[in-house]
Amino acid sequence: MSESNQRKSIEISTSRLEAFSDGVFAIAITLLILEIKVPTKSTLEHESLADYLIHQWPQFFAYIFSFVIIGIYWANHHYLFKLFRRTDHVFNLLNVLFLLTIAFLPYPTGIFGEFIAEREHLRMAVIFYSIGITFPSLSWLLMWSYASRNRRLTDERLTDDFISSLSRKFLLSNVFYIIAIIISLFYPIISLVLNVTLTLIYLLPPPTPQYKSSQSPREL
Amino acid sequence: MSESNQRKSIEISTSRLEAFSDGVFAIAITLLILEIKVPTKSTLEHESLADYLIHQWPQFFAYIFSFVIIGIYWANHHYLFKLFRRTDHVFNLLNVLFLLTIAFLPYPTGIFGEFIAEREHLRMAVIFYSIGITFPSLSWLLMWSYASRNRRLTDERLTDDFISSLSRKFLLSNVFYIIAIIISLFYPIISLVLNVTLTLIYLLPPPTPQYKSSQSPREL
Amino acid sequence: MSESNQRKSIEISTSRLEAFSDGVFAIAITLLILEIKVPTKSTLEHESLADYLIHQWPQFFAYIFSFVIIGIYWANHHYLFKLFRRTDHVFNLLNVLFLLTIAFLPYPTGIFGEFIAEREHLRMAVIFYSIGITFPSLSWLLMWSYASRNRRLTDERLTDDFISSLSRKFLLSNVFYIIAIIISLFYPIISLVLNVTLTLIYLLPPPTPQYKSSQSPREL
Amino acid sequence: MSESNQRKSIEISTSRLEAFSDGVFAIAITLLILEIKVPTKSTLEHESLADYLIHQWPQFFAYIFSFVIIGIYWANHHYLFKLFRRTDHVFNLLNVLFLLTIAFLPYPTGIFGEFIAEREHLRMAVIFYSIGITFPSLSWLLMWSYASRNRRLTDERLTDDFISSLSRKFLLSNVFYIIAIIISLFYPIISLVLNVTLTLIYLLPPPTPQYKSSQSPREL
Repeated sequence: MSESNQRKSIEISTSRLEAFSDGVFAIAITLLILEIKVPTKSTLEHESLADYLIHQWPQFFAYIFSFVIIGIYWANHHYLFKLFRRTDHVFNLLNVLFLLTIAFLPYPTGIFGEFIAEREHLRMAVIFYSIGITFPSLSWLLMWSYASRNRRLTDERLTDDFISSLSRKFLLSNVFYIIAIIISLFYPIISLVLNVTLTLIYLLPPPTPQYKSSQSPREL
Repeated sequence: MSESNQRKSIEISTSRLEAFSDGVFAIAITLLILEIKVPTKSTLEHESLADYLIHQWPQFFAYIFSFVIIGIYWANHHYLFKLFRRTDHVFNLLNVLFLLTIAFLPYPTGIFGEFIAEREHLRMAVIFYSIGITFPSLSWLLMWSYASRNRRLTDERLTDDFISSLSRKFLLSNVFYIIAIIISLFYPIISLVLNVTLTLIYLLPPPTPQYKSSQSPREL
Repeated sequence: MSESNQRKSIEISTSRLEAFSDGVFAIAITLLILEIKVPTKSTLEHESLADYLIHQWPQFFAYIFSFVIIGIYWANHHYLFKLFRRTDHVFNLLNVLFLLTIAFLPYPTGIFGEFIAEREHLRMAVIFYSIGITFPSLSWLLMWSYASRNRRLTDERLTDDFISSLSRKFLLSNVFYIIAIIISLFYPIISLVLNVTLTLIYLLPPPTPQYKSSQSPREL
Repeated sequence: MSESNQRKSIEISTSRLEAFSDGVFAIAITLLILEIKVPTKSTLEHESLADYLIHQWPQFFAYIFSFVIIGIYWANHHYLFKLFRRTDHVFNLLNVLFLLTIAFLPYPTGIFGEFIAEREHLRMAVIFYSIGITFPSLSWLLMWSYASRNRRLTDERLTDDFISSLSRKFLLSNVFYIIAIIISLFYPIISLVLNVTLTLIYLLPPPTPQYKSSQSPREL
């Protein structure tokens, strides 16, 4: 057995990394509901249950928004891993960093749901949420930059143009997220609209991988 | 490699979609218990622990009811996926929407458990719970309609009659759930009985898929 | 393809059932920690953090006890499923019922941890916990009785003696758990000792399956 | 079929043990965020949301620190299991004990985040956290000692030197963690620096397994 095979045998296989990441995605997405607090009897002394539920619309909105964001990252995570042929120690650490930012999302979601209907807290709630959803985007760019630099981990049959187009796309997303943070300092509602629009764009199917001619893509 | 195979290689495979969905099912079903609050010492100053626990019967009932509902959806989700031969981007999004409605269930369950024993909140609690359990049913119908329209994703060896019978069944369920919501506006207890009955019916085994003669069903 | 194969293709495979069950086990066991409440600054106005933590010993004890119980059920669940050759709709429902009792455990664990150090609540806390840990044992017996009656689902190469010995064992466990409930009505501490002893016995390795001579056991 | 094969068929396979462990890792790591409490409107009567969030830095620090620790244990758990050729009942129990200490981590993390910025509670919070992160390290050493003693479960083609080097490494880690606990009694900040340093060292890739010459390592 060659030296390279020996090394490979101690690496975490891509499939395990994906399974662990899937677990974190599934748990984070399902924990979101815990940020919507069930009222107790005493909460409802001055308000009917119907009124209480209607006033919770910001929390329902925050729940749906963050659910869709995590769902999109889950789908894109699978998409990305299909473009890789191997993984290494540094990439595994970057993936843990990325998961840290995903698992963090229930917290800004809770802040967002609690305070966007409060005039005096709205701006800060949107700023914090905008920062919160920029973290996964930044660490995603970091993962991709590491993996695609000199084609370190990516499938060598993918065309250079395709790799570059993804790099541009991920960079551009971060630029938009950071613009949304800056705008949120002054016009929180506009920032929110921008963030929602960005998310809706990501609902479109990702681009088909382009392989060099006369070479078959990796079978899965 | 053909164009169609290239496309396939970037799709999320059905098995991954199922594994992720299973994760969300398992987490949502296990989180239900968190809606039953453990009393603190100070809660029990005017009541014995035994009395407190007996008064929690609505929460135990809500726990069991929602547990069974999620369990049934889990089983039916597997049943449904065995009728499919492929998946596509839109279907994946519809499945995320469906999971959003499943992961939401702990919240109406908490409302239900907290307020159905309160005379003044009972009606609203049942209305909200009835709406909460209708969401998964509606998004389920949406998934099925998309997948079965023109036999887009379903196994082509299934008979048309079988496909139609499932369409009728899923549509009928939604009709009943919506009737239960309407009834809950006036007679919450009757609505509750209807919802429980509907759930009990779903405990029956699902119909055996009917395949066109001389064609074997898909092996799993 | 035969009729029986058609039926089989719509059943939930044993492996999926196990994967879903494992998910519920892993979540329920990890949620236990949420029942130990982190104090806030204001909680500690009349007590040092060290004193607070020392006074939490009942919650640590409850955490460890329930963790071990769920861990044992997880191991035994795998053991049991290796004795089965198939599954059916009723068994799947019984398994969901069993999972309902496992996912319920964090609640009696929370009650137990909160109140066993309180003289006036100790008895009720032990009664409720004893009942809580009897539920999984009862539904386990139900699963086994259904599966082993007329050798409905069990591997036909297992000896009748082995099947009978497991039936006796599971029945006996329930008898002991119910005795522990009855004792808890009068002597909570003795009941607790009995419950701990029962759990320690289950840490012993389960008996090796006995196969009929000249027949090999099922390969996994 | 031989006796040894019969025994094997009732053991929990390594892959199931790993899958269950992965589940607990993924859940524990994702539950950490629940320890950072979302403020309610009434919490913010004397403080702006921005100030509140800035004052939460200890909780963010605690979140990141514990996330990295659990992430490292997850990676090392896979590394370790690749060195094993089999598992047995005692090892399975030791693994459950190890998972108990991992699933416990959200609690000391919560204590740590709540109190390290409080002058009068800082020392105790660091002591408790240092003890909390020593538990997984101790039970890890226990697992390894059991598995490697007389090469009980380890791959027999690994060199004795490699086994000994791991034993030394795991023992040394525990020595450092215990030193950190002792230091925390007097100088909590220094203890904290030591704990962070230890964790950073574990971010380095683990040593490549050394196999006896002319024998290939186990293929995975």
